Amino acid sequence: MKFGSSNIVLLLFFIFLSVSFALPSKKFQHKPCKHLVLYFHDIIYNGKNAANATSAIVAAPEGANRTILAGQFHFGNVAVFDDPITLDNNLHSPPVGRAQGLYIYDTKNTFTAWLGFSFVLNSTDYQGTINFIGADPLMNKTRDISIVGGTGDFFMHRGIATIMTDAFEGEVYFRLNVDIKFYECW
Amino acid sequence: MKFGSSNIVLLLFFIFLSVSFALPSKKFQHKPCKHLVLYFHDIIYNGKNAANATSAIVAAPEGANRTILAGQFHFGNVAVFDDPITLDNNLHSPPVGRAQGLYIYDTKNTFTAWLGFSFVLNSTDYQGTINFIGADPLMNKTRDISIVGGTGDFFMHRGIATIMTDAFEGEVYFRLNVDIKFYECW
Amino acid sequence: MKFGSSNIVLLLFFIFLSVSFALPSKKFQHKPCKHLVLYFHDIIYNGKNAANATSAIVAAPEGANRTILAGQFHFGNVAVFDDPITLDNNLHSPPVGRAQGLYIYDTKNTFTAWLGFSFVLNSTDYQGTINFIGADPLMNKTRDISIVGGTGDFFMHRGIATIMTDAFEGEVYFRLNVDIKFYECW
Repeated sequence: MKFGSSNIVLLLFFIFLSVSFALPSKKFQHKPCKHLVLYFHDIIYNGKNAANATSAIVAAPEGANRTILAGQFHFGNVAVFDDPITLDNNLHSPPVGRAQGLYIYDTKNTFTAWLGFSFVLNSTDYQGTINFIGADPLMNKTRDISIVGGTGDFFMHRGIATIMTDAFEGEVYFRLNVDIKFYECW
Repeated sequence: MKFGSSNIVLLLFFIFLSVSFALPSKKFQHKPCKHLVLYFHDIIYNGKNAANATSAIVAAPEGANRTILAGQFHFGNVAVFDDPITLDNNLHSPPVGRAQGLYIYDTKNTFTAWLGFSFVLNSTDYQGTINFIGADPLMNKTRDISIVGGTGDFFMHRGIATIMTDAFEGEVYFRLNVDIKFYECW
Repeated sequence: MKFGSSNIVLLLFFIFLSVSFALPSKKFQHKPCKHLVLYFHDIIYNGKNAANATSAIVAAPEGANRTILAGQFHFGNVAVFDDPITLDNNLHSPPVGRAQGLYIYDTKNTFTAWLGFSFVLNSTDYQGTINFIGADPLMNKTRDISIVGGTGDFFMHRGIATIMTDAFEGEVYFRLNVDIKFYECW
């Protein structure tokens, strides 16, 4: 068989094709490499529920106390939390870990928060931590925050978490649905 | 045409060339893939400016109150903010989003802060959030902090933000110029 | 020389081989690209040690003050710190930088903290900052947190820091050994 010009063109085309697949295709690859859906449950201390509370107001603007969320959409309240994480929306399901960190109410004319926290997972499925920060405009049905790192089974992972308020009872209990999509998995 | 040894060498050379371009070249690629310059404006609550204030002191060391920044270079003050972001240095320009989060004065013998905040952008040009953390040695002309993630138009972005104090009036108003350079854009 | 089918197969094999090396091989590359071991020293203000203290309690749950760590495993205490960083475990060694940020005690039935802080390094060896966040279950011998970004010599770096409590004296002084492993170095 002779190897004619057309064959060379074909070969070059094939090479280019291969190489283009080899190029980092991050821009177009927005499919998660790992996906988890979890719930966490926050019961804020109000002066009467010490036994059940999983979070507490620890800072407030001048004039506000730390057992009642501040006026003006709770602007300036900082809460520290250690909330159970569950696989479904039942507060009493066996926890697979704890959500630990802080949230900060940060607007005077609507409900928004800023979040800095970790998921500390300790189950048969997952051992490790996931670290989150981001803005949480509470009145939106869904809010995206950043997954900025992880350890253990989530070593060096990055991604996006979509948060939804799954339940809200008075100013004492809320439950968040957290849709965790990792796009960088290592 | 015959396909001689020299042609094969040429082909191999070409393949290697292609492949070397395909290798991730992060180490040498320090040109931003996206670049924005924005300003944000902070008016701290001092007990008299409730209508205009965009931030409030919410924590302080023992002995300090929350309407006056603490002594010792404000060491221990935590402020929560919801500041307008503008395209130029005019406080009254139409905002393109909000800077939301916290800053913490963290040194006793000079002015330094620690920052954890998000830009929530909502304009015709950009929809999405950018998440920042880092040390802010205020007395330096420029300070670099980390962009640790983003959502929406800034999906999974990382980069460096260079902060400059653009104006400072008493202890009530300051304006920051934020030079946002993304080096990982997705 | 004729260029037969077998040669083409060989060439294609070679192309695939080259391309497969060009694919990002992150999943298997868990060797640090940079490694540092540092110590930092925290002396918390207790009302009597103003001259030496490097950190202060700035927030606490209702009923607690800010010169004594709160009951219930200090749940709800927020401390701001500016701690010296040294190359060895001696508090009095010349500092190579400062650890600045906050820690938050966040559990009621054991000692855990949430950390958000920066290393600001200023030595002949390193100029730049490293930014950390993560959960710190204090009773574990080692704890992993995320390095979410860096500036200067640590431009865009990411990694894992393994923290160990190297010393603990009463409730006033602790020293942490920080084993910094960068896996993304730029």
